[in-house]
Amino acid sequence: MELHFLGTGAGLPSKDRNVTSICLSMPQERQAVWMFDCGEATQHQLLHSPLKPGKIEKIFITHLHGDHIYGLPGLLSTRSFQQPELQLEVYGPHGIKEYIEVSLRVSGSHVANSLIIHEIEPGRIYEDEGWTVQAVELSHGIPCFGYIVEEKATLGELKVEKLRQMGIAPGPIYRQIKSQEVTELPDGRQIRRSDVVGADKAGRKIAILGDTTYLPELKGDIESADILVHEATFSADEPEMAKAYGHSTSVQAATLAKDANVKRLILTHISARYHQEEANILVDQARDVFPETELAEDMRVFEIQKNSSDS
Amino acid sequence: MELHFLGTGAGLPSKDRNVTSICLSMPQERQAVWMFDCGEATQHQLLHSPLKPGKIEKIFITHLHGDHIYGLPGLLSTRSFQQPELQLEVYGPHGIKEYIEVSLRVSGSHVANSLIIHEIEPGRIYEDEGWTVQAVELSHGIPCFGYIVEEKATLGELKVEKLRQMGIAPGPIYRQIKSQEVTELPDGRQIRRSDVVGADKAGRKIAILGDTTYLPELKGDIESADILVHEATFSADEPEMAKAYGHSTSVQAATLAKDANVKRLILTHISARYHQEEANILVDQARDVFPETELAEDMRVFEIQKNSSDS
Ligand SMILES: [Zn+2]
Ligand SMILES: [Zn+2]
Repeated sequence: MELHFLGTGAGLPSKDRNVTSICLSMPQERQAVWMFDCGEATQHQLLHSPLKPGKIEKIFITHLHGDHIYGLPGLLSTRSFQQPELQLEVYGPHGIKEYIEVSLRVSGSHVANSLIIHEIEPGRIYEDEGWTVQAVELSHGIPCFGYIVEEKATLGELKVEKLRQMGIAPGPIYRQIKSQEVTELPDGRQIRRSDVVGADKAGRKIAILGDTTYLPELKGDIESADILVHEATFSADEPEMAKAYGHSTSVQAATLAKDANVKRLILTHISARYHQEEANILVDQARDVFPETELAEDMRVFEIQKNSSDS
Repeated sequence: MELHFLGTGAGLPSKDRNVTSICLSMPQERQAVWMFDCGEATQHQLLHSPLKPGKIEKIFITHLHGDHIYGLPGLLSTRSFQQPELQLEVYGPHGIKEYIEVSLRVSGSHVANSLIIHEIEPGRIYEDEGWTVQAVELSHGIPCFGYIVEEKATLGELKVEKLRQMGIAPGPIYRQIKSQEVTELPDGRQIRRSDVVGADKAGRKIAILGDTTYLPELKGDIESADILVHEATFSADEPEMAKAYGHSTSVQAATLAKDANVKRLILTHISARYHQEEANILVDQARDVFPETELAEDMRVFEIQKNSSDS
């Protein structure tokens, strides 16, 4: 499972950073990509990444500012031109439906019945057998969401030693014991799974926030996330400017990461005023508060390992 | 005066060619850029060209297919962010207004009073002291225009030899004679400009067509153009396919160029099915019919010299 940064700039494209888009490649068994925001030329960035437009299953839009949505009509058209039948669901604030529908209608693009658009409210917006997605409200002048993607906990490991002591040797029976709550052995004994399986394994938790001022109250929602993606539009010495424009500083992002006890912080949405060396200063500022901080760059990929710890 | 090709592909962006946009940098004295079509990531292409978004004075849209318009909202936002007061006029088919207005409104972009959108019909759509622009109707399944940009004829050269024979020596009086219809000399003689000025100098004529099937009847409108920009989405051996999809072949473009007696033909809107070598075959096919043919490439610039010939 990987996080691919396609665009990491703020407001306008520059030669160094495109406007925002992030892709989460879901675990192997799923073979899907979930996209977060789709600034202009996101489909161009995809051409230079290993990700295929046809694999995109869901697009979550944090807010409707142009640098987060102007790539949607092009990506949707290209994707449906390549694979017209593939279903795609888009989630975002009120207004996203009108924007997409007018853009596609005016341009004569036929996206058939394969596109479903959800205008969402904060709360749990998606759940399947393995994953949930929660939208949390941010503070950016217009409706803006953060998305918290959580893998459900999975069964712990079989306690092999205990099974051996019970006289049950390894074999196909082990898979059976793990797959059902109670298994009857050939000798008539009833084995309850809960007696022979360790604690649940915690799922992964990925928090991808849209543009926002510093919001310490997010701590609870993002607690212990494996990865927090937080904007850092401004340097630590510009907290007033950040607040005035609905954005955060590097150190504010790091403070939230620390307070919420997350494992890793990735800074993105870097203003074009900070060129390469200056952008590194933003990371240094953040690392003073929260050492496990990284700077997003266009096309940079972060691996998200399967959790080995207990939940 | 130069023609800058920012995007020369058809339908979808590829690594080689972006979707359509062409800029005409107007003569020095005007310091303006006129853009024709604005596919997604046109503002990104501008970052790699010498042209500045703030210099764009007019944008002419040939038709509303996504590969010709999806870059408009981003370019307009960026431009008005950089220079909010600068006026811009957009010309295009019915529907362009709704597309632009919804995109900007939904995304909270403020383009103030500086944007004027004209939904046009075929005919003369613009005229000033030096230039006219005419929209001609093409055949592409949806309303689609070609734009014919014509420089007005300018006064011919002063006949210096004749003036000398009349006893009028070179000096500030020459400028005066050229600037008004009749000039009275200190000795009382009346000099009529028409008697001492050569034939008008023909202005430049640039024909930039949108997507179209082969339309021989365009011959009259584009007659003797200095440059004809014509699509060549398909190779010469695919005339049925070209017609079915509302496009032209390389040889059809060349045939029109030849019949209309234009000076130079530039092929653009090249399908991604034709990679570099195959695209060169398109040009070879066209040159067999019309030798003065060139292939547009992203970022390629063509100079358009001031006309020295008489009109
Ligand atoms: Zn924003
Ligand atoms: Zn078209």
